[in-house]
Amino acid sequence: MDIHTRRTIRRYSDEEVEPYHLMRLLEDASRTQTMGNLQLYSVIVTRSKDQKRALAPAHFNQPMVEAAPVVLTICADVRRTTKWAQCRQANPGFDNLLSFANAATDALLYTQTFCNLAEADGLGLCYLGTTLYQPEAIIDALELPELTFPVATLTVGWPAEEPPLSDRLSTDAFVHDEYYLDPAPEDIDRFYRPKEFLPENCEFVRINGKKTLAQVYTDIRYTRADNEAMSVTLRQALHRQGFV
Amino acid sequence: MDIHTRRTIRRYSDEEVEPYHLMRLLEDASRTQTMGNLQLYSVIVTRSKDQKRALAPAHFNQPMVEAAPVVLTICADVRRTTKWAQCRQANPGFDNLLSFANAATDALLYTQTFCNLAEADGLGLCYLGTTLYQPEAIIDALELPELTFPVATLTVGWPAEEPPLSDRLSTDAFVHDEYYLDPAPEDIDRFYRPKEFLPENCEFVRINGKKTLAQVYTDIRYTRADNEAMSVTLRQALHRQGFV
Repeated sequence: MDIHTRRTIRRYSDEEVEPYHLMRLLEDASRTQTMGNLQLYSVIVTRSKDQKRALAPAHFNQPMVEAAPVVLTICADVRRTTKWAQCRQANPGFDNLLSFANAATDALLYTQTFCNLAEADGLGLCYLGTTLYQPEAIIDALELPELTFPVATLTVGWPAEEPPLSDRLSTDAFVHDEYYLDPAPEDIDRFYRPKEFLPENCEFVRINGKKTLAQVYTDIRYTRADNEAMSVTLRQALHRQGFV
Repeated sequence: MDIHTRRTIRRYSDEEVEPYHLMRLLEDASRTQTMGNLQLYSVIVTRSKDQKRALAPAHFNQPMVEAAPVVLTICADVRRTTKWAQCRQANPGFDNLLSFANAATDALLYTQTFCNLAEADGLGLCYLGTTLYQPEAIIDALELPELTFPVATLTVGWPAEEPPLSDRLSTDAFVHDEYYLDPAPEDIDRFYRPKEFLPENCEFVRINGKKTLAQVYTDIRYTRADNEAMSVTLRQALHRQGFV
């Protein structure tokens, strides 16, 4: 794979994603390491128009959900393992926060190997972070039972766009030597000025009527009020699914 | 990369992992998509003997931690973004559960791209799930401040072993079509019998004095009592780091 040229793809051609191809990628991704090799995840494959329409509101009706040939919802899943134990005279104890964290970890690592493999094959993906924002809508649409939880969504198709590569922080900003070194204001300047000076980000600040790029993130995209409200929603959904 | 031949590597040769090579992998992995391109993660690189020794107890003294040339601890990190906002007249609101979940997601996706790239280069890795079991010991050893949280640990080196490939469930077991299909007992048999019949797993059941493979997992490796106790510990650590 060439990781250097990967970009998020939100527009897809009419070409189908062959079921056999998709299944091979889903199988290959399962080589990813998991907790005790228990594979604490499941994948729901959505191809039907009705189900894409049912999922769309949970993702703020972003157009990729209905437009993509395939939508994948990857779930933390201790239910299958629990059922296995129940069928084998064993007493499972996975209805708790730690088990959710372990299963979410398995699911996310699996998801990213899938992304790496699919992108290496030329497929275009969009990772929808919205999955954690309104999980109950996804739980309802996909009929996810207790001890499962949606943690990631991917829209998948053949690319019909080639957007510019997005910027990244330099490794200075996120790699620490032996101990966490708390950034001083001059470090923050060094880490973030290249991003702040990009023409597209200057424009982003202007059209949003803000003074700084950081304000676009804190006042519009990821506000305290939204984060706190969605923390309540997330906790409720974890409770409903039997993890807290 | 050839995903089909990847395996977890726990024994490493004396050969060094070149700092330049490691840094290139850490940089390349940062092409992974993140929430709003904010890269809500940090990586602590441990090479010193003293720091490996400090980390070892948090990982139940598994020998890889002190034996590997490099240990990486990948952290969910909204602290850097919070500091950026504070330096730019913005009001960050990332001290909550949703922001932790978003940052943990970013960190885990980043981790897995790193794994795939490093393994493609021939490096050997062991993913330590123990990171979530005693996070406070890691927080103390690495001096992780509020709004950061360790979510993954990798030991990294050049392989000095070639263990057999481990088994995986067939895609039937974890891929669902349109809706989650709850497994019936006969499905459980179909999914798990190949695993249960493997000679190494039969031996595993025997030496542990159990009747079924599932019992080894529920009675010895991942017990309800441990899971519940570590759920309390995890919640405490999230509180300490300012996320709940």
